[in-house]
Amino acid sequence: MRLRDAGELEFIRLLRAEAGAADGSVLVGIGDDAAVLACSETESLLLKCDAAVAGQHFRREWFTPAEIGARATLGAISDIAAMGGRPVAILLTLLISPDEELATAREIVRGAAEAGAGFGAPLAGGETVGTSGPLALDVIVAGFAPRGRELRRSAARPGEALLVSGTLGDSAAGLACLERGVTGDAAARYAISRHKRPQPRVALGQLLVEFGVRAAIDLSDGLLRDARHLATESGAALVIEKEALPLSPEAREVASRLRQDALVWATGGGEDFELLFTAEPSAAPSLIAAASERLGLPVTRIGTVEAGAGVRVVAADGAEWPPAAEGWDQFRRA
Amino acid sequence: MRLRDAGELEFIRLLRAEAGAADGSVLVGIGDDAAVLACSETESLLLKCDAAVAGQHFRREWFTPAEIGARATLGAISDIAAMGGRPVAILLTLLISPDEELATAREIVRGAAEAGAGFGAPLAGGETVGTSGPLALDVIVAGFAPRGRELRRSAARPGEALLVSGTLGDSAAGLACLERGVTGDAAARYAISRHKRPQPRVALGQLLVEFGVRAAIDLSDGLLRDARHLATESGAALVIEKEALPLSPEAREVASRLRQDALVWATGGGEDFELLFTAEPSAAPSLIAAASERLGLPVTRIGTVEAGAGVRVVAADGAEWPPAAEGWDQFRRA
Repeated sequence: MRLRDAGELEFIRLLRAEAGAADGSVLVGIGDDAAVLACSETESLLLKCDAAVAGQHFRREWFTPAEIGARATLGAISDIAAMGGRPVAILLTLLISPDEELATAREIVRGAAEAGAGFGAPLAGGETVGTSGPLALDVIVAGFAPRGRELRRSAARPGEALLVSGTLGDSAAGLACLERGVTGDAAARYAISRHKRPQPRVALGQLLVEFGVRAAIDLSDGLLRDARHLATESGAALVIEKEALPLSPEAREVASRLRQDALVWATGGGEDFELLFTAEPSAAPSLIAAASERLGLPVTRIGTVEAGAGVRVVAADGAEWPPAAEGWDQFRRA
Repeated sequence: MRLRDAGELEFIRLLRAEAGAADGSVLVGIGDDAAVLACSETESLLLKCDAAVAGQHFRREWFTPAEIGARATLGAISDIAAMGGRPVAILLTLLISPDEELATAREIVRGAAEAGAGFGAPLAGGETVGTSGPLALDVIVAGFAPRGRELRRSAARPGEALLVSGTLGDSAAGLACLERGVTGDAAARYAISRHKRPQPRVALGQLLVEFGVRAAIDLSDGLLRDARHLATESGAALVIEKEALPLSPEAREVASRLRQDALVWATGGGEDFELLFTAEPSAAPSLIAAASERLGLPVTRIGTVEAGAGVRVVAADGAEWPPAAEGWDQFRRA
């Protein structure tokens, strides 16, 4: 069977089988947003690698080299945020043609280094390799988290509230603007900036740990797909209230103009890099207030964890909303 | 200027300029075998990423998928060995065409996981990305070392002895055998196995720390090129005695048969993954004895650290030997 037919989830299952159980210094292995290693008595080490390939994850004509470096780095830092950690260093592997300009490579590195430094994670290492293939980056982020309190994909429990930060679908709206060459108005510019320069929710992740939250995932593949990861790893069902999904006025405006459905972007579009997490219903209001007051970040309750399996999106009238988009699969789109 | 013309060293200089000085949790940044991060009071964290691209670093027709995974992993672990660390976990980023068989991907992962586990570093994470380009792997290794006692490229001091583990040029001999289809006899098989399955000197690296050694590098790019890294980072000169270079009988036999110069392989061929290090001359004999007795590993004194700069290879009659091979450059060969 080819990878294209097997799909990414099958490959992750295979990775897990090869890796075996967490062992020795490895506290959490494959299947969460980042690996967790024993480090000191009070802290654990988080490690994440995140790769991006030109033509597959980004189109070179839409990004300056510095934006390419920054975006890959911010996406990787988002996984540290999703574990409740603080990033401390990045490493960058760059696969690049020897025929590229040195200045291009420098700008990619600069963009990555500046993005990392902005979150307290300076560029600490790198590897650069000549390739005949497309430009590719692998960003490695190391971070620390309070030991035993890392946010996990597997920790959602029936009865908890399901919450999400920020607004959803902005990145997909920005991508749609880029694809159609719609770049002039304020809504398009906002959506494009959300697509080009995601904001990993590092401070929110740490706030969640402080509030005793246990389950989180970052939205890289699209809400529905990432919610399915959370549901599967937790052995629970997630019920999402369609009308509760937070959409920005800009995403709505862009959708209206391009005759698209902003809700499809919000549920199926990837790379919003918001955090999806669960909390005791009684704790949700104070958590929402703290995120707003301390971080200026909206957090919205969008549903509930139930017993069972899978993810459902339900409208106010109780009808199930059939989502059209499946989210991102590394192999099916390549 | 294109990368091909600038070369790898220029790019590393550029990386360093972008990264800035070591800062915060980053104790050692770009320019050594691995990054060093503050972790606990007694241990530091070592991080290394090491990429390999098909057609550039290995030819697919010579390696099974499992061998590809193992070789990339063992090469990355060698950098942890060169810092005196013990590896604790690996992560694997795999760039692979969606048209490849799932079984191929599984075997690559299995080879990497088994190689890591053999050195106490299970597979703890991974990222897999579809690509239209050649198969590529980025192996990330995390390790721990006694804090402040990590082996450094920058710590060689004039007056010290220069030593190397194992034998040199075997990997290049193996490559030459593969290129010429010479695989039948015992010497060729030995050389090919050294090329295909390097043995990172993890136990030796830890022994060196125990003996108070401060400066080391692993031989991935070739003796002369890696010696130049050591000399440059230390601000010292290295003088290598041509007749002292340890060659295996097998490398000599293969060289004789293929009418090649084994000394060129030993100095210019890369990927022997032995350790090159320095020590007080008075400490060298006991260190050599300990490596032999405890690890069964030959260690040879091959020269001296002097004041000055650069690397010279000198014959017994005092004449300087002009090395023909320059070693590995990521961009110039691609």
